[in-house]
Amino acid sequence: MVINFAAGPAKLPEEVLKEVQANLLNCNGSGISVMEMSHRSSNYGKIQEAAIADLRELLNVPQNYKILLMQGGGTGQFAASALNLIGSTGTADYVITGSWSAKAAKEAAQYGKVNAVLPKLESYTTVPRQSTWKLDPNASYVYYCDNETVEGVEFDFVPEVKVPLVCDMSSNFLSRPIDVSKFGMIYAGAQKNIGPAGVTVIIVREDLIGKHLKVTPSILNFELMDKNSSLLNTPPTFGIYVMGLVFKWIKANGGIAGMSERAKAKSQLIYNIIDKSNGFYYCPVQTQVRSRMNVPFRIGSSAGNEQLEKEFLAKAEAEGMIQLKGHRSVGGIRASLYNAITLDETQKLAKLMLAFYENNKN
Amino acid sequence: MVINFAAGPAKLPEEVLKEVQANLLNCNGSGISVMEMSHRSSNYGKIQEAAIADLRELLNVPQNYKILLMQGGGTGQFAASALNLIGSTGTADYVITGSWSAKAAKEAAQYGKVNAVLPKLESYTTVPRQSTWKLDPNASYVYYCDNETVEGVEFDFVPEVKVPLVCDMSSNFLSRPIDVSKFGMIYAGAQKNIGPAGVTVIIVREDLIGKHLKVTPSILNFELMDKNSSLLNTPPTFGIYVMGLVFKWIKANGGIAGMSERAKAKSQLIYNIIDKSNGFYYCPVQTQVRSRMNVPFRIGSSAGNEQLEKEFLAKAEAEGMIQLKGHRSVGGIRASLYNAITLDETQKLAKLMLAFYENNKN
Repeated sequence: MVINFAAGPAKLPEEVLKEVQANLLNCNGSGISVMEMSHRSSNYGKIQEAAIADLRELLNVPQNYKILLMQGGGTGQFAASALNLIGSTGTADYVITGSWSAKAAKEAAQYGKVNAVLPKLESYTTVPRQSTWKLDPNASYVYYCDNETVEGVEFDFVPEVKVPLVCDMSSNFLSRPIDVSKFGMIYAGAQKNIGPAGVTVIIVREDLIGKHLKVTPSILNFELMDKNSSLLNTPPTFGIYVMGLVFKWIKANGGIAGMSERAKAKSQLIYNIIDKSNGFYYCPVQTQVRSRMNVPFRIGSSAGNEQLEKEFLAKAEAEGMIQLKGHRSVGGIRASLYNAITLDETQKLAKLMLAFYENNKN
Repeated sequence: MVINFAAGPAKLPEEVLKEVQANLLNCNGSGISVMEMSHRSSNYGKIQEAAIADLRELLNVPQNYKILLMQGGGTGQFAASALNLIGSTGTADYVITGSWSAKAAKEAAQYGKVNAVLPKLESYTTVPRQSTWKLDPNASYVYYCDNETVEGVEFDFVPEVKVPLVCDMSSNFLSRPIDVSKFGMIYAGAQKNIGPAGVTVIIVREDLIGKHLKVTPSILNFELMDKNSSLLNTPPTFGIYVMGLVFKWIKANGGIAGMSERAKAKSQLIYNIIDKSNGFYYCPVQTQVRSRMNVPFRIGSSAGNEQLEKEFLAKAEAEGMIQLKGHRSVGGIRASLYNAITLDETQKLAKLMLAFYENNKN
């Protein structure tokens, strides 16, 4: 039995994988695999439409927002968000709170002036309160990353700004309720909470569509994608199919509220062990912005005892718990607790952490 | 029993789908699905490296060519080819022989001057000989589409040009031997001959890498993709896995030579029926450039008798033969005979065509 704590691509619900497996050579009675379906066929059309309708229902997406399905992941949207939205003033505000928002800002600078709202942070362990931000009154949008996967920093508030708010929710999408109407654009790569790598979901307010720069590649062009119902070119059909099954699984498991409760319970379990370990486990992230999705910690000291961390990873692996190594840029341990990770699985990790603490504390 | 003649996404080898199905929840003994594997894990790394190595072997790709795996399909490469290669002179030559090369030229015009090598063709039913082409001596590259899926027009020669040759092989990739060294860049969306939609293969001569325009999105940037071994961002891991299995299937089924023989036999079977039907079946494409992959034809007359065509499609569907309708822009019938379509399956179509001819000829 393997428990997969990977940061993404990550665990998918077992029920979904079993359904995919059962129908792999004969999808919805068509006699063919979903991978073999023409994207223009009615069989496939129903799959894509159902996925979009279920997502709209799950997040209560207002009617003046379009849901687009694209390729290229978050990195594609680093470019796409700027290409489609920076045009009106040529300037955008970026709130850089971790590795991913930093990358997004760098990519956007290819297409316009990027204003860093925050002074460069010494470490990515906090989200400075909005009152300290230096917003550019000329910005076309304000960009932030709701959950920084590498550092485990998650916003505890939605910024209040006068221009469209653009948000990368790749790693905490569908894990808590959001008020979509507060955003100009939300996007998420699928490979964390909602499906296999290769699908990207974009939710964009319709009045923001059609302002792209002339150099926008068609595959990243919101207007073209919208006009063609995300069928401008062949979409990643299999990934969209699996994502649609994940949406149904979320609906059957308490919806977004259910996911949110699970996420809180799972992450609190681990953070409590960290906080009660007298510094044996150390999470550098400020308490109020600790991620419910990615729990990063060091073992032995705040700088991390690499020998102990190695031992911990080996013990975890021996018990079937894999992909717990922290991102190479921060080291240590990282437990990713996406929607598909169960409370039971998290408890196994908790048990290991407690035992390891008992055996290795001074 | 369904026989799927779709133009793409299209039939995949049944042996491959069965292997995918058997291993869907436990890939290569990892205990997890390939969809759940971190793209940085060694398990996944082996899958991607094997796919690239097998492709290099199948096509005998010289060592000074890089194989990149990207997202965005052919439409993504319409932009990427220009963004990465047009820079040196800002001009490129486009040989427009069908719908797809026309789209590619339109996209490239966003990034530079596009020279149409041919006068606008009245219909896409031929490939004018190279002696008639008006090449621009200033072009950075010459672009063409080896097989036009919509119209069923396939090049019967490789152009001889002095600048890098860029070729869209999306719909006939791995269906006949090619001399890679004659090309600057070859690309193919996976969803015809080699795998599920969402993966794009790029083969590019290494000295052409690094000349991209500044506005190139990272996900379409050959230099960044090459430096990161196609792991700049999360690749479409599942699609790459399936594609790798298709490469192994091709190797086990006679390699490219085997695919080429099958393609010739299958397409000849259908074209012979068309040619011997006294005009009952009509293929508008000039004989020497008729596609081995996509066989378009009309029924009843050269303009097509829509009633007869409807009846034919209904009869085909009743016998399990699906997706035979021609592209909406040309109408009629289109039988796509990609690598995964067997000779047996093609013979069933042939049998239906013969019977339908006997019952409906005057």
